[in-house]
Amino acid sequence: MATGGGTAVLALTMGEPAGIGPEIAVRAWLARRTAELPPFLLLADPALVAASGRMLGCDLPLAEVAGPEEAASRFASALPVAPLALTRPAVPGRPEPANAAVVTGAIDLAVNWALAGRVAAVVTNPMQKATLYDAGFAFQGHTDYLAHLCKCAGRSVMMLVAPMLRVVPVTVHLGLRQAIESLSSEAIVETGRITARALARDFACPAPRLAAAGLNPHAGEGGSLGREEIEIIAPALQRLRAEGIDVRGPLAADSMFHETARSTYDAALCMYHDQALIPLKTLDFKGGVNVTLGLPIIRTSPDHGTALDIAGSGRAWPTSLLAALRLAAEIAERRRAYDAVHT
Amino acid sequence: MATGGGTAVLALTMGEPAGIGPEIAVRAWLARRTAELPPFLLLADPALVAASGRMLGCDLPLAEVAGPEEAASRFASALPVAPLALTRPAVPGRPEPANAAVVTGAIDLAVNWALAGRVAAVVTNPMQKATLYDAGFAFQGHTDYLAHLCKCAGRSVMMLVAPMLRVVPVTVHLGLRQAIESLSSEAIVETGRITARALARDFACPAPRLAAAGLNPHAGEGGSLGREEIEIIAPALQRLRAEGIDVRGPLAADSMFHETARSTYDAALCMYHDQALIPLKTLDFKGGVNVTLGLPIIRTSPDHGTALDIAGSGRAWPTSLLAALRLAAEIAERRRAYDAVHT
Repeated sequence: MATGGGTAVLALTMGEPAGIGPEIAVRAWLARRTAELPPFLLLADPALVAASGRMLGCDLPLAEVAGPEEAASRFASALPVAPLALTRPAVPGRPEPANAAVVTGAIDLAVNWALAGRVAAVVTNPMQKATLYDAGFAFQGHTDYLAHLCKCAGRSVMMLVAPMLRVVPVTVHLGLRQAIESLSSEAIVETGRITARALARDFACPAPRLAAAGLNPHAGEGGSLGREEIEIIAPALQRLRAEGIDVRGPLAADSMFHETARSTYDAALCMYHDQALIPLKTLDFKGGVNVTLGLPIIRTSPDHGTALDIAGSGRAWPTSLLAALRLAAEIAERRRAYDAVHT
Repeated sequence: MATGGGTAVLALTMGEPAGIGPEIAVRAWLARRTAELPPFLLLADPALVAASGRMLGCDLPLAEVAGPEEAASRFASALPVAPLALTRPAVPGRPEPANAAVVTGAIDLAVNWALAGRVAAVVTNPMQKATLYDAGFAFQGHTDYLAHLCKCAGRSVMMLVAPMLRVVPVTVHLGLRQAIESLSSEAIVETGRITARALARDFACPAPRLAAAGLNPHAGEGGSLGREEIEIIAPALQRLRAEGIDVRGPLAADSMFHETARSTYDAALCMYHDQALIPLKTLDFKGGVNVTLGLPIIRTSPDHGTALDIAGSGRAWPTSLLAALRLAAEIAERRRAYDAVHT
């Protein structure tokens, strides 16, 4: 996955046009110097971007570009936009299924550029899933759609990254009962494997240390509070260890996220959504970044939704998007360095 | 529950004699001035206490007292001990079922003193449950045993208290599947009611604000990630509101424990053990205090176990016990003030 000569830019997708995506993208560009952001280009309708700028009281200099190669040199003085025309004008807070094809089209284009090495990474603004479903979108969300576009047959893994903690939920967007039902040794092994590889290649952890949570309180207390640790989790961790992966556990989930415990591992494997997200968002509510592991391309995104309730009000904070942009560039740099040595 | 004249002391039970209880009790007494501790008396075998002192390099002045009334005036210069003779000498790390009756006897005595108003509160050191079970102990743990001793028919509720967060799990020591199965509107209503009353009476929150978590990720996302929010939790919260209790929710659990969110409520009602304990122990691993709500007496305890692995090594930290002692005295003071106005 060569990135070609010169400075590779990041592709930032528009996300839901009626959400806060356009606003935080504009805010990110405005903060490019103080936040020391890598250059990016925005795949969006220029009229939408200009309107977001006006809402923030800013007559925004836009640079419409035909491809990512033009973007890097323009980034300092104008927000580079790869123009994609919306079918209907976006009304903040009112998602429009007629625009769904443009929303997913931005992702298609960004992924193609990433696969071709024309952008260093893809950063995605949040989509409104229900609206896409209404328009016939047949995927659960970004992650499986990206895997489809990348023709990636294996598991894709969600990692949430904050400065003081990285967490990887083995099961993701499922009700708690369903998450318990769907937990399997196979899923834990695949997730652990992909996580360990990503830590080495993308996060500069040459000897990655994983810590795996139990499912039950006190990690099941020897079976008296549940048997999933004994029957599902421990055997999976054994298999990972047999492959040479350094993983501890199953650990009592309530005792693995304080500062001293966090210093003993590079990522926590969690068994369900809230087990991962509660500690991460307790520690860092606004700055978390979602990274998809297991894809051939690099993809990050802010760890929040479309925030329709505040879209158009000028109150959206770009903290998580700034972190997502920076992390995407860091991963690209590290992966380049890692692959130069290991391939 | 009058506390009589003079300074009421706290009763501190020995807990498992082979665990770290004796050591942290001695450390607490040694720290009485710097930690600004309220006076307490320890219900324990004096030989065990003296041995713990020697392990810490200290020829401890002990004051054997016949009752709590003698303890307050002795506390400054000696550790007051209500003597209870162990059946067999305690060996650190090796719990002995033959001593179980003495362990529970300390609790019996402390509770009787509290019920009679002779001590202000009971603070319990951790017990080794498996050892008590081996000796025929027929209760799940401290909480239900205390309820039994207090002839308390209603629900007892566990609250975990740290300086920046109070959490109350509705279901407690159950495997995760079982916790989901046992969740009921009734349990949520009773827990919410007891919590609101305790916040007003014991925590100086005249208009208590509760925040209730959902069970599923994103609080079920309108039913697509589970229906417990719709069928069990929301109806319970409606009933609490109908009783005049200020409770928000069901809220997405991952978004309710960051600093800004915490400032909007006085206690979080959580649906299962780790949903409550993960954020609490992530924020404050060593200083959490367990408080039992719903009893006629005041009871706190350190939020950790017997730590058999380090018992006798002089490495136990009394942080949580110090917090438990201080909180017990604070609650006693607040409850006295509250009851003076409200009864």
